[in-house]
Amino acid sequence: MPAPSHCDLLIRGARVVSVHTGEQTAADVAVTGDLIRALLRPGTQIDAGHVIDADGLLVVPGYVDAHMHIESSLLAPREFARITLPRGTTTVLADPHEIVNVAGREAMAWMIEQGRGAQQSMHWAVPSCVPALEGFETAGAVLSAADIADMLDWDGVTTLGEVMDYRAVVDGSRRMREIVAAARAKGVRLDGHCPNLSGDDLGEYLWAGIDSDHTKNTPEVAVEKARLGMLLMLQEKCLTPELVSRLATLPVQPDFCLVTDDLAADAIVERGHLDHIARVAVGAGMDPLTVLRALTLHPARRLGLDDRGVVAPGRRADLVLLRDLADFTPVMVVCGGEPVEESAPAVLSGNPFADSVHLDPLDTDGCAWTVDLPDGEHVFRALRVNPVDTFTEPAEVVLPVRDGVVQWEGRTAVLAVFERHHRSGRRTMAPVVGFELSEGAVATTYAHDSHNLTVTATTIAALREAVNRVIASHGGICVIAAGDEPVHLPLPVAGVLSDRPAEEVSHGAAAIREALHRWGWVHRNAFMSISTMTLPVSPQVKLTDLGLVRVVDRAWEPAVLT
Amino acid sequence: MPAPSHCDLLIRGARVVSVHTGEQTAADVAVTGDLIRALLRPGTQIDAGHVIDADGLLVVPGYVDAHMHIESSLLAPREFARITLPRGTTTVLADPHEIVNVAGREAMAWMIEQGRGAQQSMHWAVPSCVPALEGFETAGAVLSAADIADMLDWDGVTTLGEVMDYRAVVDGSRRMREIVAAARAKGVRLDGHCPNLSGDDLGEYLWAGIDSDHTKNTPEVAVEKARLGMLLMLQEKCLTPELVSRLATLPVQPDFCLVTDDLAADAIVERGHLDHIARVAVGAGMDPLTVLRALTLHPARRLGLDDRGVVAPGRRADLVLLRDLADFTPVMVVCGGEPVEESAPAVLSGNPFADSVHLDPLDTDGCAWTVDLPDGEHVFRALRVNPVDTFTEPAEVVLPVRDGVVQWEGRTAVLAVFERHHRSGRRTMAPVVGFELSEGAVATTYAHDSHNLTVTATTIAALREAVNRVIASHGGICVIAAGDEPVHLPLPVAGVLSDRPAEEVSHGAAAIREALHRWGWVHRNAFMSISTMTLPVSPQVKLTDLGLVRVVDRAWEPAVLT
Repeated sequence: MPAPSHCDLLIRGARVVSVHTGEQTAADVAVTGDLIRALLRPGTQIDAGHVIDADGLLVVPGYVDAHMHIESSLLAPREFARITLPRGTTTVLADPHEIVNVAGREAMAWMIEQGRGAQQSMHWAVPSCVPALEGFETAGAVLSAADIADMLDWDGVTTLGEVMDYRAVVDGSRRMREIVAAARAKGVRLDGHCPNLSGDDLGEYLWAGIDSDHTKNTPEVAVEKARLGMLLMLQEKCLTPELVSRLATLPVQPDFCLVTDDLAADAIVERGHLDHIARVAVGAGMDPLTVLRALTLHPARRLGLDDRGVVAPGRRADLVLLRDLADFTPVMVVCGGEPVEESAPAVLSGNPFADSVHLDPLDTDGCAWTVDLPDGEHVFRALRVNPVDTFTEPAEVVLPVRDGVVQWEGRTAVLAVFERHHRSGRRTMAPVVGFELSEGAVATTYAHDSHNLTVTATTIAALREAVNRVIASHGGICVIAAGDEPVHLPLPVAGVLSDRPAEEVSHGAAAIREALHRWGWVHRNAFMSISTMTLPVSPQVKLTDLGLVRVVDRAWEPAVLT
Repeated sequence: MPAPSHCDLLIRGARVVSVHTGEQTAADVAVTGDLIRALLRPGTQIDAGHVIDADGLLVVPGYVDAHMHIESSLLAPREFARITLPRGTTTVLADPHEIVNVAGREAMAWMIEQGRGAQQSMHWAVPSCVPALEGFETAGAVLSAADIADMLDWDGVTTLGEVMDYRAVVDGSRRMREIVAAARAKGVRLDGHCPNLSGDDLGEYLWAGIDSDHTKNTPEVAVEKARLGMLLMLQEKCLTPELVSRLATLPVQPDFCLVTDDLAADAIVERGHLDHIARVAVGAGMDPLTVLRALTLHPARRLGLDDRGVVAPGRRADLVLLRDLADFTPVMVVCGGEPVEESAPAVLSGNPFADSVHLDPLDTDGCAWTVDLPDGEHVFRALRVNPVDTFTEPAEVVLPVRDGVVQWEGRTAVLAVFERHHRSGRRTMAPVVGFELSEGAVATTYAHDSHNLTVTATTIAALREAVNRVIASHGGICVIAAGDEPVHLPLPVAGVLSDRPAEEVSHGAAAIREALHRWGWVHRNAFMSISTMTLPVSPQVKLTDLGLVRVVDRAWEPAVLT
């Protein structure tokens, strides 16, 4: 029996790029249902329901994102899919650890259900560390090993999400032992998060069965990880010319994936999704075929999805049509056999997590940084932020204390974290240095990973106003920069997602970013910078609702040094 | 917590070769139980139950054979493991389709049970084509789709074995449709066998979900298969300089495996197992790191065994110690955490398949090639064999017929196939050309894949004697070359395996090979050449107990052309 006589969709006149051999071969691609039925000699007569003229175009497999968080886009799943699918991202493995830290198992179930409505193929990782650092922060929910074991059986779930509490794994803490054991018993993949972990500690992490990493490492540590079979998942900030040239010195080029991890709506709309990461990789000096494999074959394999990542008969008809391999911007995308059409922006219908910010509006007293210290000058531990990445360094700031209140205004910026899930009234503060900021503040309920209400401010008045605006909108991000109107992006879904269409959220996010810039927060990724000062698994010093954390030691950092 | 304080086994002073990066890194390898516990800085103090001094040696992962048949060694599984494990083969995926063609499900169960006693890690493929070509040959057993579905659930079974009836797949025959569907429903891998299948036909085979091939292809077809994501499994005969240099021209080097497929005991003892294939690959021009990956990482991945193929903490302690990467001969092997020790040759205890040759001794009449043709000269279809591979070409031989009997003696060699499973009395004959043979014969019950009693002879007397000796030994191989004593290797286990120790079988097999050579059967792999003239899925013309088969058309070939 020769080739089939009919198909649902025929892509005519293209050249198919093989991710296995790198060759480009002229072929007409016949699609039946959601599968590639055949690659035909160009011009083969076949009865086709729909024909796409792809003369002069390349056909590559749909892009697969092996590590990402939909919440980082600030969009509900269907809106996320609507703007990323035309960018070529036909499959994602999403780890919804932001919303699950706020609203637990119900939030995970809701995300999966929302994803079912999307044309994009959504697969799910169960968040492994809720909260990220047990005992060091207060999240809205706690997932036990038993919860996780149960959720790993849910339909659509394939992976244990990034095991962020890497020090606890290395140190053999009971929580992580139990969670890792639960996942291993299910036979799922265990994804990692272990910035610059190396040597014996890295060995212990591998011993636990965790064999991927998407964090930023020095080129030497990245190579050490690859050497030991840990799959590198390279996000934008990892794609430095230093890493690319270091990889090129190796006798064998290790497989790796390109991933988005955290991309906000405006970044996606303005620059792209995996296609953007691909261009960054090419710009950093990577060979386009290597990039293509890292977008398709390797992540599909990581996800255990042998049915995709390759253009061949029998595979899923997830296809991207490109003009050339220098640019990864799709001319057209086919997902599950269906051409991806432009679809209408949609407002989320129904928000089960509308009431997630359990805080009363602040009065002036509520803004005071009170301490149990005598009057006089004291040395406080500060977080030093930088314009490039989300790591902080420990710094020192001398501030006067009067009547038990730190007199910070006019002397430093401060970071404050208000526990917002359980009405504990708990609040912590610490100085922040690194940027030249004018009068103003940024408050956000989107603050990794516990998503307590977090505010950075240079004046008490701005702090109070930003916080109260965010409380009033049931979550969101608000920037107040001197002289400007407040810029406010509501995030009423658990305080981490918008219920609005992607384009509107993109504009809102861009406005927040611009306002931060005007304020003086000049960072390559201001969103991540602002929202990870509370992430106690990201080196080196972070502030949670319970205090300052020295991340690499997994220990408390004293707030006052004298 | 730093590195562990104790381990069961420590390999000191070696350099570990990374299959991911190709680097060699000095490290002491600590093993606990059957796992690699840690890679330690050289000289780290650790309490070790046993220490191996590996100063100056390399450590690489144990070799994994992704496609092979234990029966080809003529050895029972434990004897096979005993001689291949010291060669570095720590894991095999065995497809027992030879013995299963004789004795069905019981034989498969017996092989698996035998394998459980071995230190080598044995995994199993269910033979997909029993018989190889439905309707064209008579095997001892028939496996239905229901049988296969059931066996795919057996402990230790991971794969549907090579789908040899590739024309039936391409043509959509009911048997293969059902078997393929059964395997796909189980989610197992489907291994292929499709020599030089290409174009639309190859597309149909891939469409069925079969995505590997271990047969010999032209370099162009091999590349076509790789391009479409079919995993190439390269056995010795595939490893030609032409293929190696063709692969080197590709923009991307596709992953492939090195496999043994069919190696007889003497070949293993004299030349090696996967280590031998590796040397052949290097000799054909392959880079040693590419070879190493094709022995370890890629086959482990194919088998879905993420726990091996890499030397790293948490992986199985299947390790090979080498002097250098130019030669793959192990200095020492560790399998499942245990150093592989020399062990005593063993005679099989218990042979449930001793009575498998259901034939009475031949008398002179039984040797006659009777035909329904008038007296005179007739043109007979012959098989032309060659000294290099197992393919045949159609040839013609003119022979006189007298009183319904073909007068072949003195004019040609003949091949005869005696159905031996069901006492049908069926027998077929055809001329064989290609070698200059003296007076003699070779008879064998090991004849792919139905393993009917097959004899090639130049005289009637030799034919008869060789056949009768094999019947008397309940199976085996017997060569009679003019002037020599008969050389006879009994194979009393289903007529395909010896019950004797490997070294004895090796000597016996070598003696058979030498006798064949003396007789004039001068072939690179005389065993395979002799035993595949009956294999109706191996191009181009083969003889079964039912007649001549034109393989590429999956059709009967007329025995008489005029």
